[in-house]
Order: sequence, then structure tokens, then C-alpha cells
Amino acid sequence: MAEILQIGTSGPGLYEFTDRAAALAKGDGVMTLFVRHTSCSLFIQENADPEVRSDLNEFFRRLVPPSDDPSMSYLTHTYEGPDDMPAHIKAALLPVSLSIPVISGRLALGTWQGIYLFEHRARPHRREVVVTQSG
Amino acid sequence: MAEILQIGTSGPGLYEFTDRAAALAKGDGVMTLFVRHTSCSLFIQENADPEVRSDLNEFFRRLVPPSDDPSMSYLTHTYEGPDDMPAHIKAALLPVSLSIPVISGRLALGTWQGIYLFEHRARPHRREVVVTQSG
Amino acid sequence: MAEILQIGTSGPGLYEFTDRAAALAKGDGVMTLFVRHTSCSLFIQENADPEVRSDLNEFFRRLVPPSDDPSMSYLTHTYEGPDDMPAHIKAALLPVSLSIPVISGRLALGTWQGIYLFEHRARPHRREVVVTQSG
Repeated sequence: MAEILQIGTSGPGLYEFTDRAAALAKGDGVMTLFVRHTSCSLFIQENADPEVRSDLNEFFRRLVPPSDDPSMSYLTHTYEGPDDMPAHIKAALLPVSLSIPVISGRLALGTWQGIYLFEHRARPHRREVVVTQSG
Repeated sequence: MAEILQIGTSGPGLYEFTDRAAALAKGDGVMTLFVRHTSCSLFIQENADPEVRSDLNEFFRRLVPPSDDPSMSYLTHTYEGPDDMPAHIKAALLPVSLSIPVISGRLALGTWQGIYLFEHRARPHRREVVVTQSG
Repeated sequence: MAEILQIGTSGPGLYEFTDRAAALAKGDGVMTLFVRHTSCSLFIQENADPEVRSDLNEFFRRLVPPSDDPSMSYLTHTYEGPDDMPAHIKAALLPVSLSIPVISGRLALGTWQGIYLFEHRARPHRREVVVTQSG
């Protein structure tokens, strides 16, 4: 059975939902997470030090600057604002699906791994992540 | 049962095959797509505005220029032409496998999501994508 | 049943473990590989020409230089050394999970595809990859 998690976002950044995914794990198998959007991403990263997450944010902001940055003047899909096309590019670079083993009802994450939705748009959004488990 | 989709390509760019994948979905579970090559990628992105796809193409062309570009003079694997090693790099950056939930016989894609093969080589190729579904 | 592969690493680079994964494949289904760390990655790439792997290494070293490089002076999470935060960034850019079809007991890899652990840290590590197969 597929479950759909709704995740509200209010601007670019990482929104952790490890606990909500873990609550759906059962028995043994593989949990698949899939995000139904082309301007945000799934993301597994360190959940210990907030500096890691702000540095990650900054790296991706510099790798894919807003479309009003002179270095991005070649972009043509800009009518939804300067964060529109960079959001699609970041969504292309980062995962749309994740597969995580489930062992005895628990996600087999490492000690420092958290599951995040990485929002790339400035405006608030309600994002959907489809969660299924194969036996 | 695994099915193998053959996708013909004629130069760099995005080749949509959403309909061919969707036709293989059945019941409930997870469809896994896997590309059997190291110089092209799988890709999920917006299927509405063609400008999104040409901008994505251009971003990746600039992130990983051909090996005869001065900025790439450190590359050594160049004997198959200037698009050879950049193709391997793009194949490393972008997905080789995708996992997409299937609900009641339909891929649980978002409204704007299409499934693409992203060809990174200049010469025509016949690419193979293995499609399986787990219950 | 999940199996955990232990992979010892001694500095940045690609460590192939195709044979160890292949030995766990059986019947028909999908093998899922999942790395339980936030500073190394899974990776599928050409296993024929070693120049491809050294060029890939160099591309990622230039895309994400050490944090004592002037271009990375914005990074704040640096107390574990100059390779610490770049390792997290590379782990964010490259796969944490891979799904590979299994057909008649064999991984459906292409002729040139090998499975690698991509170590991003300088110090030796023992890395864990969880391997499961769904029917």
C-alpha cells in the first residue's frame, strides 16, 4: 500500500521528515520514497550539525545561481521568477527517488543519516512524497 | 519479469519515454528503471515547457564542457572524441536507476513529471533500459 | 534478507565491489544497495579504462575543492579538516542508493558497468553497504 506524505515548505532549504518515514516501516524489505515534483528533491544527509545543512544550501545556491545572476543569462525559462529554472536544475541534480532497506521494522539508516525534502522554490508549497514498501 | 526498452538516440538531449514505461505498469508496487550504459542517464523532469529542457541541456553543457575546452585540459580519457569523458561525468552526476511507485496500474508521477533518457554522446546510439516491477 | 558488505577505504577514490554484490544476486527481482554514511557515495561507472576513473575523481575534486581553497571560504563546517564539508557535498551530489535488476540470478549490468564505493574522506574508513533483494 502506498502512503502519501504531505510536507509544507516555506522557502528554500532542508525539511527533515525522518520520523514520519520511519513510522511507516514494517517487517523486512525496501522502502521507496518518490517526490512528485520537478522543483524540489529528496535528500539524505547528516542530521547532527546544522552547519552542514547551511553549507550544503550555500554550495547549491552558488552552483546554480538565480536566473537574474549575470552568469545565468543564457536561461530562457524565467517567467515564474529568478528561482524557477534554478529549481528545475537542482531537482535534476538531486534525487527524485530513494530506496532504503527496512530490517525488522526499522529503516537501516546510518547513525548520522536523516531524510529531508530539499525545497528549491521561494514561495510556500505543499509537497507530496509517495512512500511504498516492497517485501 | 524484466522488460528491456530499446531507445534510439541521435545526439545529446532528452528523449521522453513516459508512455512506454507507463504501459508496463500493473497492479501495485514499485517500477525500477535501470540504464545499462555509462554515457547516458535516466531523468525525470518537467514535460510541459520545452524551454525547461533546453535550459537543462545548456546548464549541463556548461557544467561539463567538451574536453577540447581549455577548462577541461586536465582530462586524459579523450581518444573517443571531445564528448567522451564529459559523457561519463554527466552519467556519474545523473541517475542510472529510478524507482517509481505504481498505484492501481498507474505510475504515481506528478502532473508535470515525464521520464527521459538523457543522451550525452554525439553519435547515434541504441540504448537499453531494463524495467522491472516489484509487488 | 539484508546483507551488509564492509568495504575498507584508504583515501579518496573509487573502490570496486561488483563481484561481491553479484555474488548476492539470486532468481529474479531488484537488488537495492544503500550506503549508511554521509561522506561517501555509491557509483556505477565504466570498469574498463582506469583513466575514466582518475578523470572522474579530478572532475569532482575541482567541482568541490577542499575547504581551505579560497573559492570555498564560505564554508563553516570545517573543524574535521579541509576534506570534511566537501565530502558531505559530494555525498549529496552522488547516489546513496542504487536499484539494479536481477535476471536469472545475475545483475543486469551493462558490459562496461562496475559498482563502486566512492570514498570522499582522506582518513581510512570502514564503510557499510546494505544489500537487499526484492522478489
